[in-house]
Amino acid sequence: MHISDHRPGTLIQGGAVFPHRHLTGIDGLQPHEIMFLLNEAEHWLDRGATDTPDIRLAGLTQINAFFENSTRTLLSFEIAGKRLGADVVNMHAAQSSVKKGETLIDTAMTLNAMRADVIVIRHMASGAVRLIADKVDCPVLNAGDGWHEHPTQALLDMLTIRRRKGSVAGQKVVICGDILHSRVARSDILALTALAAEVRVCAPSTLMPKGMDRMFVTPFTDFDEAIEGADVVMMLRVQNERMAGGYIPSTREYRMRYGLTAERLKRAKPDALVMHPGPMNRGVEIDSEVADGPQSAITEQVAMGVAVRMACLDVLTRRARKLEGWA
Amino acid sequence: MHISDHRPGTLIQGGAVFPHRHLTGIDGLQPHEIMFLLNEAEHWLDRGATDTPDIRLAGLTQINAFFENSTRTLLSFEIAGKRLGADVVNMHAAQSSVKKGETLIDTAMTLNAMRADVIVIRHMASGAVRLIADKVDCPVLNAGDGWHEHPTQALLDMLTIRRRKGSVAGQKVVICGDILHSRVARSDILALTALAAEVRVCAPSTLMPKGMDRMFVTPFTDFDEAIEGADVVMMLRVQNERMAGGYIPSTREYRMRYGLTAERLKRAKPDALVMHPGPMNRGVEIDSEVADGPQSAITEQVAMGVAVRMACLDVLTRRARKLEGWA
Amino acid sequence: MHISDHRPGTLIQGGAVFPHRHLTGIDGLQPHEIMFLLNEAEHWLDRGATDTPDIRLAGLTQINAFFENSTRTLLSFEIAGKRLGADVVNMHAAQSSVKKGETLIDTAMTLNAMRADVIVIRHMASGAVRLIADKVDCPVLNAGDGWHEHPTQALLDMLTIRRRKGSVAGQKVVICGDILHSRVARSDILALTALAAEVRVCAPSTLMPKGMDRMFVTPFTDFDEAIEGADVVMMLRVQNERMAGGYIPSTREYRMRYGLTAERLKRAKPDALVMHPGPMNRGVEIDSEVADGPQSAITEQVAMGVAVRMACLDVLTRRARKLEGWA
Repeated sequence: MHISDHRPGTLIQGGAVFPHRHLTGIDGLQPHEIMFLLNEAEHWLDRGATDTPDIRLAGLTQINAFFENSTRTLLSFEIAGKRLGADVVNMHAAQSSVKKGETLIDTAMTLNAMRADVIVIRHMASGAVRLIADKVDCPVLNAGDGWHEHPTQALLDMLTIRRRKGSVAGQKVVICGDILHSRVARSDILALTALAAEVRVCAPSTLMPKGMDRMFVTPFTDFDEAIEGADVVMMLRVQNERMAGGYIPSTREYRMRYGLTAERLKRAKPDALVMHPGPMNRGVEIDSEVADGPQSAITEQVAMGVAVRMACLDVLTRRARKLEGWA
Repeated sequence: MHISDHRPGTLIQGGAVFPHRHLTGIDGLQPHEIMFLLNEAEHWLDRGATDTPDIRLAGLTQINAFFENSTRTLLSFEIAGKRLGADVVNMHAAQSSVKKGETLIDTAMTLNAMRADVIVIRHMASGAVRLIADKVDCPVLNAGDGWHEHPTQALLDMLTIRRRKGSVAGQKVVICGDILHSRVARSDILALTALAAEVRVCAPSTLMPKGMDRMFVTPFTDFDEAIEGADVVMMLRVQNERMAGGYIPSTREYRMRYGLTAERLKRAKPDALVMHPGPMNRGVEIDSEVADGPQSAITEQVAMGVAVRMACLDVLTRRARKLEGWA
Repeated sequence: MHISDHRPGTLIQGGAVFPHRHLTGIDGLQPHEIMFLLNEAEHWLDRGATDTPDIRLAGLTQINAFFENSTRTLLSFEIAGKRLGADVVNMHAAQSSVKKGETLIDTAMTLNAMRADVIVIRHMASGAVRLIADKVDCPVLNAGDGWHEHPTQALLDMLTIRRRKGSVAGQKVVICGDILHSRVARSDILALTALAAEVRVCAPSTLMPKGMDRMFVTPFTDFDEAIEGADVVMMLRVQNERMAGGYIPSTREYRMRYGLTAERLKRAKPDALVMHPGPMNRGVEIDSEVADGPQSAITEQVAMGVAVRMACLDVLTRRARKLEGWA
């Protein structure tokens, strides 16, 4: 039924358009597969309280296994699953057997044996999601693992850009902040370059990974330079751990050099989009004037998040639900 | 369909009978509006396991944003929403972005962007609920904010009194305990006086707010005097913080002067109703003999709580559900 | 409809086959009642994502009141209830009024007043579940109380053995570990002996209760001896508290004497089943080689757990749902 709008003339249907069992990262996805998920997400936007609920996941069990706390992402996945009619259960690390010394694999096997139909995982270790995905029978969705990936964040960012700017391709996007430790930056870079955006990254040299050119992005340490003429400005959250760890001299100095102030935003295009994955440190990486200003798409990103997660939950369970063309 | 029984002869239908978008407090509600909510709550009483579920909130998302812990109130709102078929998600402060320094407004905007259809908020700061209500597109229900209000508690108390005593009007009600810091007392006073009860409040002078007369209640510091001839005795919970804070000399002395003992209850009317919002400190503000005695309506209050919350969730979402007369 | 396969020729229908209001333990259950629950559980096995959901508990409220943390058991009960369509709410001890000094009875009365249709309780005190069961109007399910019982664990173990071995009767079963403090061991012993298995228990003498012969089991302190010719080997988890408490000299020595190694397993029958309630301490009470080996039924136990809990929730609510023959 759904076809990719990325490859006109090519009619790809059913499971062939998205052959992946899991969504562990943006890495490994083809551009048309990313576009397919964005198109699917569009379907879930603008539904309101009076629309008949579409509970296509009724009878399916979605387990949100969050080994690392995250209010927003957990809420977003929980709402997404419940809107689709799934039986959603949350497993919080704080109350989990992990505390009793159980191995990650044993936890995964347990969730699997309870016949989860889809598992959403957030974990502090890079690669933990992949490890679990290899062990279970059901689709696994990465909700953030260590410094590795956070694919649904990248998808919601792409959807936000596409809706506001018409397309991702050709946009000059600057990502500023702690690129080194950011799974958001990593997934966004992969998605943006896959969809043919022109990507610049900006960070203090202590927070800039090596080999950025191999990711097809241009590194900057001077934000004023990096933001010049940008269509989209994506700010990253300053983690308190980084400040404690000495990577950042002070929040005041950070703001001065890497904060998005109204003054600095003027260097970008006049209609440049301002984005932030949240939660924001107002007055540090972003000023309130900008966050709440007319160019900000920050709350829109949150709305896109639920739609993107509904799309991912729907698409990944199509095989199990034996949808025509997917079974 | 529903009309207020408080103003016979006046037929008020649909949204006109309850024009408020939010329920942030009893303050600002007209007597007939309070009665309307009580009548609506009656509808949800006495439903049992064999009744066909009435899932009128199916497809709607209810977010319980509890910045302050409360097992009972959260459970009550969660059960109320689920019984009505809503997708209920809980946001616990302990696991929330608030811990990461996010502002309350940003949290509210996030919940709003996820398209909550109703938000239930409990917060330690007076006025926090009003602040959020001003920022979001959906109805907001106050589940207790600081020393300000706890309107559903007052509504369930009114319903309990009305069912047991026939009406609230004309009842002599004494509220005893920490009036100064109690949002329950504040909301109850507002509701009781609106419904024409005669209200006395009793507290140690350190725990009695000033200007009680402006709230149309009579203040007492002697419980024996205050309870004389009462139809209803509402006890407030002694908060451990108060004891630590030196407001209360000792639990033993508190019980002696302000505890509801069987002996003291005899000063009230023989059929006086005993109420407590729970959880109780047995042997401090109330003796077990009284709490478990024939005059106690304490567990009935809990049952009324679920019905009142179902009514509030139903009524406040009628506009969004475009019910005839409410759209 | 369902009849016990344990008493051929006797047709027992409806409530007569399982006349109990609660499931507080295996103690007090007749063999045919245990078999009845196992048969009911079979009904829920092997249901998949494409089966039409059977939401027979729709409109019923299931409260999981967990005063003691347990990820697995809570998840299992939560999934079981949601699959049956119940409105499932969790009450965590950490956020509960218990912390505010409320009595257990008051908490129970509160849950009851909210009109719970079934309450699942886990509590650190032996007998707490029975205490609550006596106070509430709805069925109560014991999810583990102190050193007393954990009946659904025993039922899932019986189901696992029956499915793998054809029947429980006549099997030589050895249970090894901390028998003294284990409610799992207690419930398993009661179920195994009721179903006519031959039971041996093995523990260090400090962890072996007195009077084991009165429970119709044979005590051993030498695991090599106890495991000889066994059909089923059930290992118990070593609790960290025990090690700290000096009951166990060291994990290394424990493994040497009481750990299930591949070497030791050879003393059991060649097709002996290996079981563990989880979470496992790999390399302490059980070696990975055995836990992941072909004789292991450990993940199967988890799957049986959900089915057994669905059966218990279904059966115990039949009276309230006024099923023919149960009302």
